[in-house]
Amino acid sequence: MIHPATPEFLARLEAALPAGTLRERRSGELEDPRGRYQGQAATIACPATVEEVSTIVQLCNAACVSIVPLGGGTGLVLGQIAHDGPAPVALSLEKMTKIRGVYPQENVIVAEAGAILADVQTAAEEQDRLFPLSLGAEGSCRIGGNLSTNAGGLNVLRYGNARELCLGIEAVLPDGHIFHGLKRLRKDNTGYDLRNLLIGAEGTLGVITAAALRLFPRPERTAAAILIVPSPAAALELLNLAQGIAGEGISAFELISGMGLDFLSDTMPDLRQPFEDHPEWSVLIDLGVSGASDPEEMLATLFEQGFEAGLVSDGVIAQSEAQRQDFWTLRETIPEGNKRVGSISSHDISIPLSKIAAFIPEGIKRLEALGDVRVNCFGHLGDGNLHYNVFPARGRDRSEYENIRLEVKRVVHDLVAEYDGSFSAEHGVGRLKSEDLERYGDPAKLSAMRAIKAALDPNGIMNPGAVLRLRAD
Amino acid sequence: MIHPATPEFLARLEAALPAGTLRERRSGELEDPRGRYQGQAATIACPATVEEVSTIVQLCNAACVSIVPLGGGTGLVLGQIAHDGPAPVALSLEKMTKIRGVYPQENVIVAEAGAILADVQTAAEEQDRLFPLSLGAEGSCRIGGNLSTNAGGLNVLRYGNARELCLGIEAVLPDGHIFHGLKRLRKDNTGYDLRNLLIGAEGTLGVITAAALRLFPRPERTAAAILIVPSPAAALELLNLAQGIAGEGISAFELISGMGLDFLSDTMPDLRQPFEDHPEWSVLIDLGVSGASDPEEMLATLFEQGFEAGLVSDGVIAQSEAQRQDFWTLRETIPEGNKRVGSISSHDISIPLSKIAAFIPEGIKRLEALGDVRVNCFGHLGDGNLHYNVFPARGRDRSEYENIRLEVKRVVHDLVAEYDGSFSAEHGVGRLKSEDLERYGDPAKLSAMRAIKAALDPNGIMNPGAVLRLRAD
Repeated sequence: MIHPATPEFLARLEAALPAGTLRERRSGELEDPRGRYQGQAATIACPATVEEVSTIVQLCNAACVSIVPLGGGTGLVLGQIAHDGPAPVALSLEKMTKIRGVYPQENVIVAEAGAILADVQTAAEEQDRLFPLSLGAEGSCRIGGNLSTNAGGLNVLRYGNARELCLGIEAVLPDGHIFHGLKRLRKDNTGYDLRNLLIGAEGTLGVITAAALRLFPRPERTAAAILIVPSPAAALELLNLAQGIAGEGISAFELISGMGLDFLSDTMPDLRQPFEDHPEWSVLIDLGVSGASDPEEMLATLFEQGFEAGLVSDGVIAQSEAQRQDFWTLRETIPEGNKRVGSISSHDISIPLSKIAAFIPEGIKRLEALGDVRVNCFGHLGDGNLHYNVFPARGRDRSEYENIRLEVKRVVHDLVAEYDGSFSAEHGVGRLKSEDLERYGDPAKLSAMRAIKAALDPNGIMNPGAVLRLRAD
Repeated sequence: MIHPATPEFLARLEAALPAGTLRERRSGELEDPRGRYQGQAATIACPATVEEVSTIVQLCNAACVSIVPLGGGTGLVLGQIAHDGPAPVALSLEKMTKIRGVYPQENVIVAEAGAILADVQTAAEEQDRLFPLSLGAEGSCRIGGNLSTNAGGLNVLRYGNARELCLGIEAVLPDGHIFHGLKRLRKDNTGYDLRNLLIGAEGTLGVITAAALRLFPRPERTAAAILIVPSPAAALELLNLAQGIAGEGISAFELISGMGLDFLSDTMPDLRQPFEDHPEWSVLIDLGVSGASDPEEMLATLFEQGFEAGLVSDGVIAQSEAQRQDFWTLRETIPEGNKRVGSISSHDISIPLSKIAAFIPEGIKRLEALGDVRVNCFGHLGDGNLHYNVFPARGRDRSEYENIRLEVKRVVHDLVAEYDGSFSAEHGVGRLKSEDLERYGDPAKLSAMRAIKAALDPNGIMNPGAVLRLRAD
């Protein structure tokens, strides 16, 4: 049973911590990025060390006061937004931003959880290494949040999700004990995988305070192209072709729909677009290679062979790093275009690769049966991860669709389940999708999750209501 | 509290399962591969389906009879050997060997847990794909055991451990419920990572019955070399150089010590060796590349640049696939040589890469202070994983060292802990290293592990005594 943070409790907390650890919330803070929900907080605690985190968690646990860990606040599923129940202690990692060490010979960096993702990338770059996690919010999200949500992003195809990039973590468990697990080892089979249990648990089983992360050699040469494909099926065949030509050199393979390009023209007419007529489907392919290989030549070969095989009808290979950046700007501006048009419902889904080509039109068919909607389907095709977002017909507003919003979501997620997919590929469950988890999740897994949660956090203080819904009992 | 499997219980079990599911143990079965321990079993249950596994687990759980899951029985840490306590039901996956599906477009194979690792490799090859998990026991170990122990092997540097090769699992949890988690997805963030919790849990949290595994394009061309290096430090610098030349094309980078080659000459004089005078240190490097690159040319460049930099003094580049296979035979015969010499104590350790060069001689120094011993240090240098095995002086027998055996192990593992390494890199904890886990494991992690075990397996029936020691209380 969670208790409210009384003034007496807050005074005790304050007394146990260095001056300035607790602060008031700032204006706009704790609002979800899509602007629909407002989080609460009895106070914002900003510890500077793992020991201070431990003190906070111990005191909260003893008093049954809940904690919501805060990274950059960019999560899209309300994992950081406690919008009902007693106001929690918001535990912000904003002061724990140190890079504790870079080990170029080991290809490892150790960063505190509050480090901004872009700063981790920069610290790696300074040692001529690559930290490949890359996503739209990288300028403000924090690595602890990336790990807690097992963030995906643009380079998963080549380098894996946040989970695969993490060798070890330091964390504070719900009883306040510190898990010292900052291993810098590629191989370590000594007991249950507590690291991966905390990664993706969205702060419900503890607070990640630091991580040992994998680095990679920086590819010496990069190249990118946008190629027009006749269909998502052709795009997937093209990916196979590309893998034959460039092997593990493919860093990203992104699907772009004509609808997304239309939205960009409509809402940001000044943005440079590579094609005057928006192709219905195109892919952005990015290569990074070292040694003797020439990535532009690889792309030219891919274009040629793809053209001959009827998989590519036209395309542009970036002629400079600036043009490559333009391609990426285009790709990364699609979500802003979506935001300006205003979606009825957004879906972060994944589908087994061999079923994607059938899924995309089937979904559109079922959605059009619900009403006059447009679908912008785009994303990380190489990973089977689509952002399958549903919008009002041109000239109409999403408010007119309020009555079918939940049905839209249901139709998409039911179809995802039919196709053995996931209703949350990279954003997590948070509070927004906890009902989906109950509906679509495996019952044995759910029951094991509840048992683990109760075992590690018997008072239920860690981010209550995220991932696992609170139940009346 | 575990109960013995009474005749009445066994009769009930038999009646609940198809005829022929229970069998007697065969001669030699349940002996550990190093021949030191003998496992017990009240019966050997060989279910053919996951539902039958579920029936067995339910009945055992209800009667508090313990279960020891059995794969190929090749584990080296007694995870499969219940040598004390009431005799358990040994649950062998030997009938569940189906390849349920291969999905070349997705680069996924779904195999039942009893499938022999080599058969999984072959099924992938038939679709022109690579399943890269590869280790000495691949002709007899089973994929369920590989996952339960998070097996490593020869290609971890490039492709990761068994954990990283697994996208989804089907498993029976200790209460008998079936976890249907055979996802074929690269991205799926829907709740706690039960898959990775079961992987590496060595059968103590449930029985893995099937897995969806990652496949890779087969590299079109391979090449290998054995290069003589002045020291392990030079070998690591050479690895860096190789990464610059061959990028992600390095499939394996193995350290070989002169001691290992001496053991091979002594015990298998007919085995072909590449150098007449055994170099104190050499590395076996294996490349696999596609597209326009030429791996032999890469090795020649590496040799040249390594020679100029003083990192390589001599070497052989394989001139044919047969010679490459000879190199690998040499490497993979080292453990047999060790077995014939007879170790005092064997250690499967990992060390952060930047500390390995200091670790190796420091360990030898401390061991020589204990007595007249020889160290054969070899293994997966690219992963920081060494097999650091200690042998009697020439002409003496390991029985003469019985009095210092535990001290030898202690000295090595203490030093590993000092160097932030792991006392079990790829073999797991089993029953052999459960005391080490208590000594060297993080206390917060251990206490979380015990809580998880109690939550998922309240009767303690799943492989009791493995990983977590049974406690008097």
